[in-house]
This record gives sequence, C-alpha cells and structure tokens, in this order.
Amino acid sequence: MAVEPAALGYGPRTDAVEKVSGAAVYAGDITRPGMLHARLLRSSVPHARIVRVDAARARQVPGVAAVLTGADLPADREHWRYGPILRDQSIVATDRVRFVGDVVAAVAAASLEAAERALAAIEVEYEELPAVFDPEAALAAGAVVLHPDPNPEEMPGTRPQHGTNVCGLTELVQGDPDTGFAEADEVIEEVYRTPPSQHCFLEPHATIAAWQGGRLTVWTCSQTPFLTRRQLARLYRLSASHVRVVVPYIGGGYGGKTNLRLEPVTSYLAKLTGRPVKLVLTHSEVFHTVTKHGSTVRIRSGITRDARIVAREIDVTLDTGAYADTGPQVAKKCTYTAAPYRIPNVRLRSRCVYTNNPPAGSLRGFGLQQVAWAFESHMDTLAGRLGVDPLEFRRRHLYEEGDRYVTGEPLHSVGLRECLEAVAKKVGYGTPLEQTPGRRRGRGVSIAMKGSFVPSTAGAWVKVNEDGSVMVAAPTPEMGQGSRTVMRQIAAAVLTVPLERVHMAPVDTDGLPFDDGAISSRSTFSVGRAVQDAAENVRQQLLDMAARHLEASAADLVLEAGAIRVKGAPPAMEIPDLMRAQMGRSGTVHGEARVRTFGGRVEENGEAYEVSACFWFIAAGAAEVEVDEETGKVTIRKYATASDVGHALNRSTCESQIRGAAVIGLGQTLSEALRIEDGQIVNASFSDYRIPAFGDLPRQLDVVIVEVPHRDGPFGAKGVGEVAVAPAAAAVGNAIRAATGVRITAPPFHPEVVLRALRESSK
Amino acid sequence: MAVEPAALGYGPRTDAVEKVSGAAVYAGDITRPGMLHARLLRSSVPHARIVRVDAARARQVPGVAAVLTGADLPADREHWRYGPILRDQSIVATDRVRFVGDVVAAVAAASLEAAERALAAIEVEYEELPAVFDPEAALAAGAVVLHPDPNPEEMPGTRPQHGTNVCGLTELVQGDPDTGFAEADEVIEEVYRTPPSQHCFLEPHATIAAWQGGRLTVWTCSQTPFLTRRQLARLYRLSASHVRVVVPYIGGGYGGKTNLRLEPVTSYLAKLTGRPVKLVLTHSEVFHTVTKHGSTVRIRSGITRDARIVAREIDVTLDTGAYADTGPQVAKKCTYTAAPYRIPNVRLRSRCVYTNNPPAGSLRGFGLQQVAWAFESHMDTLAGRLGVDPLEFRRRHLYEEGDRYVTGEPLHSVGLRECLEAVAKKVGYGTPLEQTPGRRRGRGVSIAMKGSFVPSTAGAWVKVNEDGSVMVAAPTPEMGQGSRTVMRQIAAAVLTVPLERVHMAPVDTDGLPFDDGAISSRSTFSVGRAVQDAAENVRQQLLDMAARHLEASAADLVLEAGAIRVKGAPPAMEIPDLMRAQMGRSGTVHGEARVRTFGGRVEENGEAYEVSACFWFIAAGAAEVEVDEETGKVTIRKYATASDVGHALNRSTCESQIRGAAVIGLGQTLSEALRIEDGQIVNASFSDYRIPAFGDLPRQLDVVIVEVPHRDGPFGAKGVGEVAVAPAAAAVGNAIRAATGVRITAPPFHPEVVLRALRESSK
Repeated sequence: MAVEPAALGYGPRTDAVEKVSGAAVYAGDITRPGMLHARLLRSSVPHARIVRVDAARARQVPGVAAVLTGADLPADREHWRYGPILRDQSIVATDRVRFVGDVVAAVAAASLEAAERALAAIEVEYEELPAVFDPEAALAAGAVVLHPDPNPEEMPGTRPQHGTNVCGLTELVQGDPDTGFAEADEVIEEVYRTPPSQHCFLEPHATIAAWQGGRLTVWTCSQTPFLTRRQLARLYRLSASHVRVVVPYIGGGYGGKTNLRLEPVTSYLAKLTGRPVKLVLTHSEVFHTVTKHGSTVRIRSGITRDARIVAREIDVTLDTGAYADTGPQVAKKCTYTAAPYRIPNVRLRSRCVYTNNPPAGSLRGFGLQQVAWAFESHMDTLAGRLGVDPLEFRRRHLYEEGDRYVTGEPLHSVGLRECLEAVAKKVGYGTPLEQTPGRRRGRGVSIAMKGSFVPSTAGAWVKVNEDGSVMVAAPTPEMGQGSRTVMRQIAAAVLTVPLERVHMAPVDTDGLPFDDGAISSRSTFSVGRAVQDAAENVRQQLLDMAARHLEASAADLVLEAGAIRVKGAPPAMEIPDLMRAQMGRSGTVHGEARVRTFGGRVEENGEAYEVSACFWFIAAGAAEVEVDEETGKVTIRKYATASDVGHALNRSTCESQIRGAAVIGLGQTLSEALRIEDGQIVNASFSDYRIPAFGDLPRQLDVVIVEVPHRDGPFGAKGVGEVAVAPAAAAVGNAIRAATGVRITAPPFHPEVVLRALRESSK
Repeated sequence: MAVEPAALGYGPRTDAVEKVSGAAVYAGDITRPGMLHARLLRSSVPHARIVRVDAARARQVPGVAAVLTGADLPADREHWRYGPILRDQSIVATDRVRFVGDVVAAVAAASLEAAERALAAIEVEYEELPAVFDPEAALAAGAVVLHPDPNPEEMPGTRPQHGTNVCGLTELVQGDPDTGFAEADEVIEEVYRTPPSQHCFLEPHATIAAWQGGRLTVWTCSQTPFLTRRQLARLYRLSASHVRVVVPYIGGGYGGKTNLRLEPVTSYLAKLTGRPVKLVLTHSEVFHTVTKHGSTVRIRSGITRDARIVAREIDVTLDTGAYADTGPQVAKKCTYTAAPYRIPNVRLRSRCVYTNNPPAGSLRGFGLQQVAWAFESHMDTLAGRLGVDPLEFRRRHLYEEGDRYVTGEPLHSVGLRECLEAVAKKVGYGTPLEQTPGRRRGRGVSIAMKGSFVPSTAGAWVKVNEDGSVMVAAPTPEMGQGSRTVMRQIAAAVLTVPLERVHMAPVDTDGLPFDDGAISSRSTFSVGRAVQDAAENVRQQLLDMAARHLEASAADLVLEAGAIRVKGAPPAMEIPDLMRAQMGRSGTVHGEARVRTFGGRVEENGEAYEVSACFWFIAAGAAEVEVDEETGKVTIRKYATASDVGHALNRSTCESQIRGAAVIGLGQTLSEALRIEDGQIVNASFSDYRIPAFGDLPRQLDVVIVEVPHRDGPFGAKGVGEVAVAPAAAAVGNAIRAATGVRITAPPFHPEVVLRALRESSK
C-alpha cells in the first residue's frame, strides 16, 4: 500500500446523477404484466383473540382477486410462520393479534382503490385480551404471555425462555465480578433508558412478488437478499434455487429492511391469484412495521480510589414488542458491546421481552446505541465521583491493539484513542468556555465500539469484457451508503483501469454468490474484500495470458495503468489488446472469490476465548452544548464525530456515512421518540415524529476520518456505516451535565425534559 | 458414458407449464416506470432521395415526447450507422430510403395512439431513384448502386465489392476443377432458385430501452445478447460494461432475431427523451424487417461413366435486399455447405447482392437451405443421367469419419450414412408403390450438412447453494428450442442432483460470461459443454471439501445420486450436509468454464487446411409424394426426417426440434414464399403468407434421432436446431420427379406451378 491506487481515495458517487435526476428505479417503481395491488387490514386493538373475520363482502368488491385471512392459511403452521430468529410471525394473523397494526387480512385487487374498498368491507370481531406495554410488567409473575406456545427457532442459540415473555437472553461473564465488587472502594449504580424510535427511511417498504414456472421472484427493498431467499424457500418448502430475490436501489434501510417484511404476504397473494402482486406501504404503516427497541439499562460499577474500574455489571431489558424480529440479536449485541474499556471483572446480561407494542428490530448500530448511552453517561458519573476529568478517565481505560476484549479475543485495528483525541480537540475540549448568564455551556465526549458479526460469508465475482471493460458482481444492495461506488473502485484499483469502465451487475440472488447482506457495516470489509480477491484472480489470469502472448514469465510481468509490461520495461500491451490477441472479439475473463470469517470458540495455547467480531467499528463523539436555563432548550454549538474506517477507499463517502450516522444519533438525542399510548403509536407520521431539520443541527459539525488499517480488509478498509450513531446521546448528555451539573437519564432531550430536570435539581 | 446419467435422456420441458399457462414473460410484456411507446414511419417507395422530412406538426401532437428524423442525427455517421457485417444501416434514414418499409422517422409518445397520430402528421418528400429488384439486374453494368459510399466493415473478411452492389463474396477451390471437368465424361449444368420467405415467429420484434446512470439497458428478444451488447456499445462509443442486454423468453427466432433490430432506434429515442422507450412491431412490420434470401444457384458437375462425380462448380447469387444484414455470412455458408460429398475438384462461389427489396438475413439453416435444394436436386439429375438409383448414387459419395472436407479439414462425427439410410427405410424407399390413375406417386431422398461456425466462444457458471440446490448461468436465450431445459439437465447429470433442484439464472449480459448467442445450432454443443465443465469444476470442489471433512483423499471419493461416498463404501454424506458442515447456513460453491473453439488455417505435418466448423450438423429427409395430375396438388404421404444429434440429452426436445425444422422445411417446400412486386411485399400477413397448417403436413411424419457422439460435445451431444430444414425441398422435389419425371427448379410447389410443369413436359 505504498502508493494509493488511482481509483481509490477520491471520486463522486457513481449513482449520484441517476438519483438526483430521478432516473433511479426503486422497488415501488417496478411493475409487472398483469400485476395486482395489495393492501393490508391491520388490527385496531393491541391484544385480542380473533373471533371471526368475515371477508365475504370484500370478496364481492369488483376488481378483487383475493382476500387472505387466517382461516385461508393451511392447517400446518410451518406453512405460514416465519421470523429471523424465532418463527413467531404469521403471514396474516390466525388466532390472535398482538399489537395495534398487526396484519389481520390482506387483499389483492386490480387497483389500489378496489383493494381499499375491500379492506373497508372486511368485518373483524375481536375478543380483547389483557395487554402489556411495559417490559418490566411483562416480566412480572402473572403477566399475560404473548406467545404461550413455543415458537420454532430459525436461528438457534438466543435462549428464548418458553412460558415467559423473554424471547432472547444473553449473558457474558469475564473475570470474577463478585470479588471485583468486593474489592472496590465504592460501587455506583445507575439506570438509563432509551425510548423506541423509528428508522425514517424515505422509501417505504415495497415488494412485488411473482410466481413463474414454479419459481418465486420477489423484487424488494431488502438489505439481505440471500437471507430473504433462504427464509422464503423455507416458508414454501422449496429449494433455494426456486426463489429469486432482486433488489433495486433501496431508499435507506438502516437495519429496518432486513429479513422478511412484505415478501411473505405478497408472495402468498401471488400464489393464490396466479398473478404478480405489488405492495407498497404508507409511511404510517412503516412506523408500525419495525421500530427501535426501547431499553432500560441498569449499570453498576466498582471503582477504586486510584480511579480504576475493577468491576462492572450491566443488565439490559429491551422491549421487542409483539414479535421477536431481530430482538434477540439486538439483546446479544447489547451485551457484547457493553464493555469497551479494560475492566477486569464483568457481568453482562440482556433480555429481550415481548410486549403488545409494535415490533422492534435492527436500527443502525443496534444494541450499541442503547448501552453506549448508558455506559458513556455512567463513565462521566464515575469520573465526577472520582474527581477525574472524564476524558482523562476514559484514556486510562481505553483498549489498545492486542488487548483482550471482554470475550477474551485479541483486538486488532482499534482506533479508539485516535477517534477520542480527535473529537475532543475539534470541540476544544479542555479550553475555557465563555458562559452567558442563563445560558450554560459545557462539553462532553463519548466513544463506541462494536464488532461486526461472525461467522460472515461474502462472495463476489469480477469479469473483464472483450473490450477490457469490467463488470463487478457484488451482492450488496445500494441503500444510499455508496457501496456500489466503492466496489467499483476496488476492482478498478486492482485492475488499474479507469473507474468509468467498471460497472456493477444487478443485485439478484440468481446470479450472485451468497452474501449475508448489507448489515453490520460489513459490505466494504467483507464484500469489498471478496471483490478485491476476485479482481486479483482476474489480474493473475490476465498476466498469465500476457505471459503466453509475450512468451515471458508471468512472474516478470506487472499490470499498471491498464497496461501489461515486463518489470522495468515500457508497457507492452493494454488489456483490450491482450483480450483481442487471445480471444478475438469474444470472451470474458472471470474470477470469483469467497470470503468467510469464522467466529465462536477458539482454543489457542491452552487458552480459550470467543471470537465475536470479524472487525471492530470504532467511533467517538464530542459536543459543546448551550442549555437555556429558562426554556430548557439545548443547542449543540459544536459536534465532532470520528470513526476509524481502517482505510478510506472513498473519502467523501466515508465522510458522508460518518456525518449521516452522527445526524441520526443527534436526532435520537434531541427529538426523536415514538410516543406509544396503550400500544397505539400516536406520532406515526413525519409531521408528528420529529427528525432533525437543518436548523436543529450544530453550526459546526466536524467529521474526522481515522485510519487504523485492518489486516483483512480490502486495502486495509473496515466498515463505517453505523457506529457513529452511538456516541451522540452520551456526548451531548455529558456536555449538558458538564454545563448544568444535571444528569438526564433518557433521551431525547426535549426542552420540557431538560427544564424539569433543571428545576428538580435546584429544589 | 457407460451409464446414462439419471438427468439425461428424458424429461419434459421445464418451461412448459409457464408457457401453456400464459405466465411466461416476453419482451413485449415488460413495462418500465415512465415508459414511452415508439412507432416507426416507413418508406412507401423502394428507392428515393429524401428531400424533406417535416416533423413540426408531429412534434405538436399531445403526448409526443420526441420525433426522430435523419436531420436530428449527429453529423458523424459513426454515431448512427450499424450492421452485423457492414455498418450500412442507420437508426432512421438520412439521405436515402432503399426499400418499401425503410424507417424514415421514429416517434416516442406517452401512448401508442399519440405516437400513431404523430406518424400521420409527418410529411416526407421523396425524389424517387431508379430501383432494382432482381440481383442479376443489380449485377449488370450501369445498374443503380444502392450504397455508393463504402460502408465500414463490422466483421472483416466478407469482401464487399465497393462501387458495385456486391456486399459479400466467397470463393473456395479444392483440387483442380478445370482438369476435373476436362477429365469428365459428361458435364451437366442446371440452375435452381429459391424465393425469399419469412421466419414467421409468433412473437414480433420487441424491445424496451432505458438509460440509467450513463448505462443503457435493453430488454429485447435477441438471440445474440452479447453481440447486441457489443454493437450497441460501438454505436454509442461506450465500453461493453456500459450496456446491459436482458433477454426474457423469445417467442421463436430462427435467426431473425440476431444482432441489432429495434435496439438502436429505441435506445436513441430513450436517450433523446430521458425515458424508457418500448417498441413492439406489428406482424406486417416484421415481414419487412428481415427475410430469407432468395437465391439463384448455378450448379455444374463433371461425371464419369462409372458414376463418379469428378468436378463441380457452384455459383450462388443471393438477393440480400437493401441492407447487407448477415447476408455476406449467408453467402459464405452457401459456399461452405455446397459440397457434402466426396468430389475431388471443386470450385464454389457465392455473391451477396444489394437490391431494393426488403433486407434478408439469417433463417434457420441459412445458406444450406438455398444450396441443398440445388445440389440435392442436381444429384438426382446426375443419377438419372447415369442410370443409377439416386440413393445408391449418394451412398457412393458420402463422407465418412476421418474424410477430408472440401476445406481440407478432417471430419469427425458425421452420421450422414446413418441419417440417409434411416429415412430411406422409414418411407419404404425401394419398395413398390401403388399407382392410381391420375395420381402419380414417387419417393425421394436428400441430405444436408453444415458446420457450426468458428471461432466460437461460450461460457457458463454453476453454483451450488447453501441447501445443495443448484443455479446454472448459461447465456443461451430460450426461444422455444428447449436449451434451458437441457442446460439444467447437464448440470443435474454432472452433480447427480434431481432436475427440480436445478434452476437457471436469467439471460442478462451483466451477470453472464460472454457467448456468441443462440445461433448456428451451437447452444447444446458449446454452451452445454461450458455448463458441463463448470459443473465438473463444482463437483471437484465438493469432493475436495468432502475430503477435508471426511479426512479422506478426494481421489478416493465419488459423487453419486447427490451423495458423496468413499468408492465402494455406502454414502457418507449428501451435498446439503456437506454444505452445512463446511459453510454453516451460508455460502455458495461456484465454478466457471469457458469453451473456445478456434477456426481458420491450420498447418499440420506440412499440410495446410482450414477449420471451418466446430462440429457438423447432419440431416437427411425422405418423402413419398402423390401428385394429382389434374390439379397439380402435391400431397406428401410420408416424410421422414433424421438428424445426427451426437447424443440425445433430451429425446423429446431433440425430436421436437427435428420435427419442427422439418415442418419449416416442408412449409418452404409446399407453400411459403414472399411475393414482392416492385419492392412491395404483397402478402405481408399470416392470412396471405401461407405457413403449413396441420392438414398440409404428411399423415406419416417420422423423426429419427441418430447418435454419432462428438468428442467435444457435452456427453457427446451436438446441435440439432436447424439442419433438418434443409433436406425437405429436395427430398420432395426428387419424389415429384420420381413420380412424374418432371423437375421443378424452384419451390414452393404450388399446384399451379406443378401443373404448369407437368403440362410443359407433356408438350
């Protein structure tokens, strides 16, 4: 990596013109011949037994091709039950509804209007059941159990506790926590909470399903095309080769478009009617489809007089709503991200709990968001108690290269210190602050660290066309993150051809190698590496071809600026010349690569540990805030966000990823929260649910790219998508505390919340 | 090949249900968001200078997005000139029109109706030029030259004669023809003709073009997706990676859907308007798009008293109409297929000539059809002259394995004798015929032999999914020939998995390796072999994985019935178990293969020859006819058709291919011909142009599959698509001659033609 390949480090998004000109095609734009339109009837009650669904009148509505109710599903539950962790969801409700918004019936009709008319004609009789909206209450003895029958596990190992509302449980212990606490000079315990919130992607969920020749094709906005394929194949008892998942551009995903969403109901309606079926949700429906887990984090630390943390215990409770979705994984990540500092004795536990709220799943930086808010607020509490500067207190506990994580695994490529120091400097941490009467200013910092999941499988292929131009096939949907630009850059860099002669094959499970999906910030690291390896394979084939043509040894040849030369000699021939010479006007050179990162238990030199991450994503945030003591309004004057990207393959995309993540974090910090009253979301629209407007954002918003190369990433690169979300809340909360001395225990920091806290503290 | 793999030799077409249920999607079914509809304005005169095209009123028609006339094209002709051999066609006419139907202007509008209204509003002023409709006249000195400026060569080597109407010339000489003729006891010369005709596919040409992000995508019914991609890339001066060609099911091609058809005009309109543009021709327009070459074949043979042919000369003139299309290639094939017998001294020449008729191109068995009619009729003339039975006369001259063709190349897998004997037997050749007064009966035989082109490039990949199911990517469009069934069978056979767990990726140039296309009956042989090799590659990877898992040597393992076993031991594990064990629930095993068959001049042991074929397709036909002496009506009582398929991978598909080809041949024999009067096709519809109805076909139509395995084909298979068309005309013509003693020199054998010939002979 002495010389940066020409294709890297710069360059506009290759999808930019298409998107700003409106030419880009999303799932909702797609039509199919003879297509029907679907609409869903949703439960108006949070928890009920379905006594009766009468669809007779709906079926008579002109243009209606099918009405699907629970009674129409086959007797064998395995034919309609699905879910990424537990198969606890059904295509439409059968015996029960479990949240306001649960799907009771589905209609496919020749027009949206006919479908709507049919929905209005369906009569549903409910027998309401006791509902539970608070996870603590759901855990209490005697609480109503949402899923009394155990649901089969799609992904084993998340420990659902049958007969209770706990659908996922993770525990992790390192060292000897009891002894650690006993040896502490002081034990400090706090409780932090986060509210449920929403992804707020601009593109609502949209899917078209069609059966042809016994095969199912779905065009869908899925971040996980191959997991979607696998789960659909299971649902219909087909082989994976019977299912094709095509993913056009996605208008934002942030974790909300993983696994199955509209694919089961659209494909079932398509099967019933023998025609393609399209379903695009309204934004209000999107709010009810998947949310971010509200959380309660109890955190307890044992500290010593010399400012060391010797023991920690964290207990996380997540409200996963009516269905598990990815909740048990989120709970697991709460545990596995709860310890970004060197603390010798640790006990971590997370539980994922069913309630009659709308289901919660993955949202950018899942798990980490909830616990980082808690442990990074708690760090300032501890530092304050010890009389140590919070930045300095963090410095003493930061992980370094080669340190062992709480799982015992050795850490590699951890730019925590670089990120933290960079953001602190950007906001002038430690320099004097001008204070105005009634307007308190303060600064705070925060870090976050999360491992991208293991085991991880990625694949890609690269082909050189007869004219030397290049096609790259990488199964990463483009959801705004710029992955498809970076994949092109990687192939262009390896093959030393201009970026504009490199293009991408569509995301289509038929034609691509298996990949786990555009999740866990893994695309650049895993898929990008597969693209790099595939391109290297092609490069070697070209050199071998050239060696035959030039009657030289391949080992003496190099590929530079699209031309092959004997080392030290002038260019002998360009790639298109070589292709022509060896293949006439026909033929492609094709290379494939597969990257698999294993995880789990490792034994090494008699020592056992767990590999929980294929790489670590690392971020820090720092804020300078001003709190209006009269109104409670918090103004973020400066915010700095840094992320360790390993190696920036495209600086502008890295910057916009980090900035975008920080803005989501700041939104969740300042204003975003779902208001759910008796199970009913009361702000399920963009007018009532406040995402940050430009005026809400800091005037000074600095993005710092930190590069601590990773040995396994393409050109040293790591993922950058999500981690910068997590530090925002604690950085701002710590700055508020620094400004006012008041600790607020749950975002968002609405003025009324801040004002109440200020008033209570001054009582 | 001792044991036939389970997946081969049987099985229904995998696309059958989809097609008979109407679910199959063709290009005309595809829609794109914001799509416009195109219509074309066509010339009403055969040859004219365009004085003026006034589109001002047309542009004002509500809904019209663009009107394209020659004046709107850029000054540089390279931006709008295209063609598979010579770039002599333009997107719309610029200075001249050259046939009735030539495209003068194109409209893209929001609806078909608006487009039609705009067409009607375009005013064109022509200055008519002298037109020539007969190739002999077009060759005469002083004839009007259709393309006075030389057109650039897209495919070099076809020898256009600039300044004349000859756009392609092939000559081939073997031995010493002059001496051969001098040594002959007698020289017999005849002239045979064939009329122009039509492909009559059920699906008209249909294309949708869209530009996105600087890339062009076309969804089109193209038999040659990669050649289409290459030619579009050239037209727009883009790299191949900028162009994506997607081919859904094709409703019949027969050579008429090769190279560029509607892609240039739709893509140009899409570029102009910034919106997707769709164009579907009417059937009448299809008749004007590409036809089969009418031909004149002068054939001259030197024979000896002991019934040997010692010299032959053939001179072919093809009417290629206003544009060359593939005409020069057709002319070349006339030459290269003109000598399917051992004749020591041969002089062959073919010329392709421009006229002001609609353009002619490839039609199933092109070149061969025209010359086989001639040389196989001529064989019976010679046999008659020599007093030898025509079947016996053929037997003496048939090529055998290892013989040298007229090019000097050694022949392999030539089941000529097997085909000929089989069909002769089926129609009872040589057994007595019952003759009724006024109804003359007779029998005739005919053979045909054609080489599939070289050099040929094919590619494919195969992947095994995480559940052991299989995806095959083979770039062969499915146009009714059943290729996609056979490709699945080949992969299933190699991997020993059930056919229903093997599926095909879509035909999409983005995702597939280069391939020359579904032409020249090459798909099974070339692409099938690539699929076989790719599957073998995957099989080896699976064995290697199993070897690691079982701690065995891969060389000791076999894959049988989807399970891996140590040779001689019971099955150790099935493929899905192996995948799970080695890859968890993720990952695919991918294998790719490329098959390239070289052609051209070879020097071997001091001897030079030309390799002109990657394999030979071989057929024979035999007919028993009854001629009504009063009406001239010819009834084919029996017809037998045989083809050497190498090895039948799917017997029912082979049979239907051979039968279908024979039926096309019989149609051209009995009824099909374009009637062109002063350049105007007067029967450009299915009601006026007679394809055979079931009642026109022989009561007894026998299909014989001959299997002479080819060393390079998958499991020994060769192509089977087109050759059985060619023997029909001569077999029937020879039977008519046998019945009546009258030789008719041009099909189709309409009753009035036969009657006239009978009357003239009895004068």
